[in-house]
Amino acid sequence: LGFDATVLFQRRNICKESKRMIIVADNLQITRTDVAAAVAAFDPAPVRALARRCAAAGAEAVDINSGPLTRRPRERMQLLVEAVTECVHLPIIIDSANPKALEAGLETAADMGTAASRVTINGFSLEPAKLDGVLPLAGRYDADIVGYLLTPDGHVPAGADERMAVAVDLFTAYTRAGNDPARLIIDPVIVPVTWQEGHRQAGEVLEVIRQLPQLLGMPVRTIAGLSNLTTGIRDRTRRSMLARAYLPMLAAAGLDMILMNVLDEKSVRSARASRMLLSDGIFSWNTM
Amino acid sequence: LGFDATVLFQRRNICKESKRMIIVADNLQITRTDVAAAVAAFDPAPVRALARRCAAAGAEAVDINSGPLTRRPRERMQLLVEAVTECVHLPIIIDSANPKALEAGLETAADMGTAASRVTINGFSLEPAKLDGVLPLAGRYDADIVGYLLTPDGHVPAGADERMAVAVDLFTAYTRAGNDPARLIIDPVIVPVTWQEGHRQAGEVLEVIRQLPQLLGMPVRTIAGLSNLTTGIRDRTRRSMLARAYLPMLAAAGLDMILMNVLDEKSVRSARASRMLLSDGIFSWNTM
Repeated sequence: LGFDATVLFQRRNICKESKRMIIVADNLQITRTDVAAAVAAFDPAPVRALARRCAAAGAEAVDINSGPLTRRPRERMQLLVEAVTECVHLPIIIDSANPKALEAGLETAADMGTAASRVTINGFSLEPAKLDGVLPLAGRYDADIVGYLLTPDGHVPAGADERMAVAVDLFTAYTRAGNDPARLIIDPVIVPVTWQEGHRQAGEVLEVIRQLPQLLGMPVRTIAGLSNLTTGIRDRTRRSMLARAYLPMLAAAGLDMILMNVLDEKSVRSARASRMLLSDGIFSWNTM
Repeated sequence: LGFDATVLFQRRNICKESKRMIIVADNLQITRTDVAAAVAAFDPAPVRALARRCAAAGAEAVDINSGPLTRRPRERMQLLVEAVTECVHLPIIIDSANPKALEAGLETAADMGTAASRVTINGFSLEPAKLDGVLPLAGRYDADIVGYLLTPDGHVPAGADERMAVAVDLFTAYTRAGNDPARLIIDPVIVPVTWQEGHRQAGEVLEVIRQLPQLLGMPVRTIAGLSNLTTGIRDRTRRSMLARAYLPMLAAAGLDMILMNVLDEKSVRSARASRMLLSDGIFSWNTM
């Protein structure tokens, strides 16, 4: 692959001096029929093939979205994590609403010798079930963790002020539990632009990413799921066009990790061009 | 055309509440061989044809860049302004380093009954020759005027602090001369990304656009020339890719007018998608 994303993860852990936004594949998710079938059949081959495709397309980390995994969560998450880490040398994000599945993923990663610095839990929020069931896993497994800017009842904040207040509450809950701020990755929650307040929310998400360091008094990493923006838009061209317009805005706002469809080549190019423009060094096509 | 950009210009004159970035064609310039030949031959037909193409491609204003026009500046600028205003109903920006040519353009526009609110002078800077020779035209012809963030000796500011200081000096020089702040449009000067400090400058331009309202204590309109970013890059795909990554960043920073190649369809789509995302209203493809 010729590029070690771990170095970037570690640099991010220290400070936010670089603007190099990390490209995280959102492709490996249970909603894909091939992934669902592979998990049901305990067949790692299709998962490996997809992970390899993502890495080849430019993924610098892979989100393993298993869904809630209500049946046999441990074995199934184990299958997914093993399949991915066996074939691509990329940091992984273990993504499930089910704490049992998350824990199985963390254990599997540890068993496979994956460094804790290369494993992220996705994720917790101010919802009591998440604070009680998910957040403690971060300390226990010494992993990075994604924290969503959602209200305690699981809703998207109604406006800019509420979003900022939720960010402070989330950060406070996280650090009060004894966790290291450098291991937190805040997800401001992109919503579909087709929602009634979708435009406004799109602007507010940029604003919260920009203002977080000042709001929290220190740099905290951020992640956002780009696909959410265009949920409900069927036309592929329009979807890609909107995503490729929002992506540079997120990068310029200071977003650290972009969770995206890495098999959309144009979006990957947009992400690379964005961070090339925002990088510290001298212009070079190699930085793209 | 179905869309009256004058309304936008007027709204901008009042306040910066809307984020609708205006698309200004940079295509009508003397460096194009067809435009140069038309001007030399006093033939308005090719100029009209190009202006129509720009309008059809989505231009909401047209920059008429005549160059210095050292020979017969009055007649030639008159030809250009007449040709454009006769065939497209769009605001115009009269763009020349030669005050005589600018004045001829302003007189022609007035003679043709073009409202002063639809004519912009491009432009002045802190260079003494510009302050003496160009700035007075704004008051005399009741026109909007572009002010470049350049040092008094005509250079791009060396860093963020100097750029901010130049903005304050420019604004002060402009208002001290008795001009209305609502008629000023600041151009932060995009430089080629291939310059040694090109990346840093690209980031600083975004920052100055974002901070100008606070810096000057009031909203002031901004314009930027996108093509400058990719000057010196031969590969068309790379040029377009970089432009389309920077464009949404400029829009999100709050840029009011983007001077760009409107015949690059992909860039126009990117501009429209950007402002759609940043608009106030409910999502609609019509807003694109």
